[in-house]
Amino acid sequence: MRGFWGDRIDAVADKTAMILYERCVAAGMFDQIDPERPVPPVKMPWHTRADGSPDTVNVQMFWDSDVAKVIETAAYALYRKPNADLEAKIDAIIEMFAKLQQPDGYVNSWFIRMQPGLRWTNLRDCHELYCAGHLMEGAVAYFHATGKRTLLDVMCRYADLIDKEFGLRAGQKHGYCGHEEIELALIRLGRATGEQRYIDLARYFIDARGQQPHFFDIEAAARGADPAQFRHKTYQYNQSHLPVREQTKVIGHAVRAMYLYSGMADVATEFGDDTLTDALKGLWEDLTTKQMYVTGGIGPAASNEGFTDYYDLPNESAYAETCAAVGLMMWASRMLGRGPDRRYADIMEQALYNGALSGLSIDGSRFFYDNPLESRGGHHRWTWHRCPCCPPNIARTVASIGSYMYGVSADGVAVHLYGDSTARLKLSSGEVTLTQSTAYPADGRVTLRIGLDAPATFALALRAPGWCEAPTLTLNGEHTSTGDMSGGYIQLRREWRDGDVLELDLPMRVRALHAHPAVRADLGRVAIARGPLIYCVEETDNAGNLNGLVLSDDLSAARTEPLPELGGALVIELPARRERWSAGDGRLYSTQPPAAENTTARLVPYHLWDNRDAGEMLVWIRAAQ
Amino acid sequence: MRGFWGDRIDAVADKTAMILYERCVAAGMFDQIDPERPVPPVKMPWHTRADGSPDTVNVQMFWDSDVAKVIETAAYALYRKPNADLEAKIDAIIEMFAKLQQPDGYVNSWFIRMQPGLRWTNLRDCHELYCAGHLMEGAVAYFHATGKRTLLDVMCRYADLIDKEFGLRAGQKHGYCGHEEIELALIRLGRATGEQRYIDLARYFIDARGQQPHFFDIEAAARGADPAQFRHKTYQYNQSHLPVREQTKVIGHAVRAMYLYSGMADVATEFGDDTLTDALKGLWEDLTTKQMYVTGGIGPAASNEGFTDYYDLPNESAYAETCAAVGLMMWASRMLGRGPDRRYADIMEQALYNGALSGLSIDGSRFFYDNPLESRGGHHRWTWHRCPCCPPNIARTVASIGSYMYGVSADGVAVHLYGDSTARLKLSSGEVTLTQSTAYPADGRVTLRIGLDAPATFALALRAPGWCEAPTLTLNGEHTSTGDMSGGYIQLRREWRDGDVLELDLPMRVRALHAHPAVRADLGRVAIARGPLIYCVEETDNAGNLNGLVLSDDLSAARTEPLPELGGALVIELPARRERWSAGDGRLYSTQPPAAENTTARLVPYHLWDNRDAGEMLVWIRAAQ
Repeated sequence: MRGFWGDRIDAVADKTAMILYERCVAAGMFDQIDPERPVPPVKMPWHTRADGSPDTVNVQMFWDSDVAKVIETAAYALYRKPNADLEAKIDAIIEMFAKLQQPDGYVNSWFIRMQPGLRWTNLRDCHELYCAGHLMEGAVAYFHATGKRTLLDVMCRYADLIDKEFGLRAGQKHGYCGHEEIELALIRLGRATGEQRYIDLARYFIDARGQQPHFFDIEAAARGADPAQFRHKTYQYNQSHLPVREQTKVIGHAVRAMYLYSGMADVATEFGDDTLTDALKGLWEDLTTKQMYVTGGIGPAASNEGFTDYYDLPNESAYAETCAAVGLMMWASRMLGRGPDRRYADIMEQALYNGALSGLSIDGSRFFYDNPLESRGGHHRWTWHRCPCCPPNIARTVASIGSYMYGVSADGVAVHLYGDSTARLKLSSGEVTLTQSTAYPADGRVTLRIGLDAPATFALALRAPGWCEAPTLTLNGEHTSTGDMSGGYIQLRREWRDGDVLELDLPMRVRALHAHPAVRADLGRVAIARGPLIYCVEETDNAGNLNGLVLSDDLSAARTEPLPELGGALVIELPARRERWSAGDGRLYSTQPPAAENTTARLVPYHLWDNRDAGEMLVWIRAAQ
Repeated sequence: MRGFWGDRIDAVADKTAMILYERCVAAGMFDQIDPERPVPPVKMPWHTRADGSPDTVNVQMFWDSDVAKVIETAAYALYRKPNADLEAKIDAIIEMFAKLQQPDGYVNSWFIRMQPGLRWTNLRDCHELYCAGHLMEGAVAYFHATGKRTLLDVMCRYADLIDKEFGLRAGQKHGYCGHEEIELALIRLGRATGEQRYIDLARYFIDARGQQPHFFDIEAAARGADPAQFRHKTYQYNQSHLPVREQTKVIGHAVRAMYLYSGMADVATEFGDDTLTDALKGLWEDLTTKQMYVTGGIGPAASNEGFTDYYDLPNESAYAETCAAVGLMMWASRMLGRGPDRRYADIMEQALYNGALSGLSIDGSRFFYDNPLESRGGHHRWTWHRCPCCPPNIARTVASIGSYMYGVSADGVAVHLYGDSTARLKLSSGEVTLTQSTAYPADGRVTLRIGLDAPATFALALRAPGWCEAPTLTLNGEHTSTGDMSGGYIQLRREWRDGDVLELDLPMRVRALHAHPAVRADLGRVAIARGPLIYCVEETDNAGNLNGLVLSDDLSAARTEPLPELGGALVIELPARRERWSAGDGRLYSTQPPAAENTTARLVPYHLWDNRDAGEMLVWIRAAQ
């Protein structure tokens, strides 16, 4: 990767990966995990507050998962560039997990050190298999990056134990995790190791979910608890209210939902299971036509970290957790497992460049947990979070962005995402090297060079993004029809030769997006977009009171220019009116409309907001109507 | 009273007064009060739900106050027209209170029957003096209407006891009520009986409030409770966080605040206390320039039934309790005690005709508790409420509206409100009869006839409402200058003769009101008003999706016509666009603005909404911008 993503991955490799490690140290997370240290108190000393007073942090039952994502991020960072110091630190963490592992294979620091004797007693609430899943993902990534097997072996032994404990046979627990994740992780572990049992176990977890009698009822009764006293009230919260194939509404905790659907999509791909794919298609429509922010952010409510009613998409209070946008990318990417389809890739790109990438500052050092689409000036990036799931999640996603770019089958390559990069892909006809040269997403022109040892026939599918009205293509300099664009991809099947050059042009017009009028918060407003990027206004460029800006309905005057302080990202300038209330007039209501003057609104990509001076921010801007 | 208010008072006299009584019976309220009945359980059987299942109601510690307001309403109803049945029923209630009264004068059914032995142990939470205050108001009204002294005597004995128990002397409780009301009630009782001690006691309650050491802390400790465990967290909730003269922000529970300020204004008038008036002027500015809905509704939040942040005026979730708008009228009316000032009378009228009157259906049978400015169709009038404070509060206010219309001093009359009516007023020069002939509020032309036994010199002040740009006046047919309009009143001092006729014309233009741009909920929207009435659109006139309506900025095409089904109220028709989302296009976001067609928006007075078919309602309508 070079260009836009190259810079971002370098920031993760150079900075974020180590920052994540150090903030885990500062938060005492390894005090919980390392079996050679004393068991920590639940409330541990932490940093010093701005006012000089000491702050504390509670040991969290899900910290294994956060450390696992730090390992995964480090793996991609080390793949990008060697870093002996980082690698030694990660090796030491892996050693802790290896030592933590029980003789029967069990690995979970919370239940081994903080709550001994209680393993497998509360799958509903305690993230036990969720932690296992993330450790499996970390193990696979670290093995691929470094060739080191320690964590992979640990997690295979643990997976073997889980496979023994859970299932439909007599004596097995017929259960599953309250926080989905292990399903997709087992698929990943199975694919990495060739072990079909892991993939079958993933299918078991998917199939078992939501069946009656309900496992979480049985489990609660077994530990002497009243199943009705579930803190989140209904099992919609963890998507176990119905068997997964009967679910039609995207519901509950957003990250859980995305990880479940990702696992379902993986199982559908592995087993060619149309019943799962059909359910997923319905859920996809439900999410993307009624419950998704224009940034690809999802889950509007903080109360359940998740979904509410259709079209309930408030901007200022939007939760839209970074992890949920990453989860949507993961789901979208896995929906492409059954073939290229722009429906999924467009949304993957939308979530990536907006609601997900906003979670990481340009320099890779600060993070958003929730991603509102409007701020009065009080919302800022964190250095760390008591629930530190988002920082390593966006970091691992950015650092592995290459894995989202292509779809490869035996005789075809689909290009889902564009970016300056080189990929080596294996087809049945042999290896092909695909080189993209592009300033994407600042510019829609992409040059693709095909590198082959010998001429080869295969299909090349180039995504024509839905936001682009008129893509054009040349092959070796000659204009080529984009054809019927089945599934939104330009389909090219031919005998390719080494050095073939495709020039794809995806003209990027500044667009004003209107929301469905049922979205109350966006009425009379537009969101400005260009290419895959959603834009916003920030106080630092436009002074305060951003809701006093009213954009002209004439976008033909839009200008773009690169802004060095935002890494050369293109700024958009648009004519607008700015309303002002007459000075000294304190009246609440008046027959006089607010005075207005002409101005120029200056917009920056949403994912870049709060990288400069703190202040107000607004995505949905009032528009002349 | 004739015309608009005559019809409304007749509805209360003919219907509401008895309905209130009967719903008290149905809710078992007299089972608590009547000492000859068995003490009821806290949870009593109530009505049958729509699904046939039985519902229950909890005995409430503040029911005495609700019954007191029923007595007060009945008093005004009986003053309007005799009703032997109603009078007998009220006499029977009064007999209950007389029998309930303890030998020392104490009267409170909750503490006598439900919680014996606990009187005066929790003034903060238990509405004890609040109940006393409402019973005093009821007693005064019933005495004035019927000449019967029973309740008045009961309440004087009770007031004497309270005067003995509370005060600054040793052995007295240095306390006051958590829910203000007794302050203004004591003033009323003192004025009716000529007993200065009651007025002095009101001043004591005002002066004691919020002093340190804090009475509610002391009281809580005395009953073994932790003062910090106050359910509403801070004493801002009941306006006892500071001594009243130091309060500058309108805060806490809205009805409590209004009753406090009303009592303060009364005390300021009684004692000519400028320190109180100065504090009240600041609070008035605070409320009316930063915290009041355009309907005169106040207290946006359900959580504290009260105030939040400046400019936080959401429309759909507006609490804006009917009682709070009535309280605002009461405060405004009392601010006029120190002389006519349009600042107060304009807001009194605004609250009256909109946020208060909305609480009562045209036929006088159904009630709003909260008065949102937008509804998706789910908000409807109640037949009764578990906390039945609002129904008798708006009923007593409507039935006594005449008492809000005039201000009378020794040598002057101020006309604060207009309405078809006749009033006999006593000045030092003798009695004057003022007859208003007008279709107000449908029409701004008011004919005032002066009836005198002999020529008399006095000042007549006619309010020139702030909403009226160019009032005109004739005296006995000759055009007369409106003068300097000090305080927003046309000031006429002369020798008046019997039969003098003033013709006041207050032209009513359809106005579009813009909110201060800090009111986020109203951006890009207007509220339509005519005269004192705020208008709204209802689904029954405009089909659904009212947020798809965009009003033209040209109001010159506005038409009005009387609507018989709403008692002849004037409907306003305005040109508008109606946005429609293309059928079958389920996309959330689109570069295509919603299709729009020209239409006519039909608006009705806000206070009349939900009197016809149920549906959506909207006050702040999108406007071309």
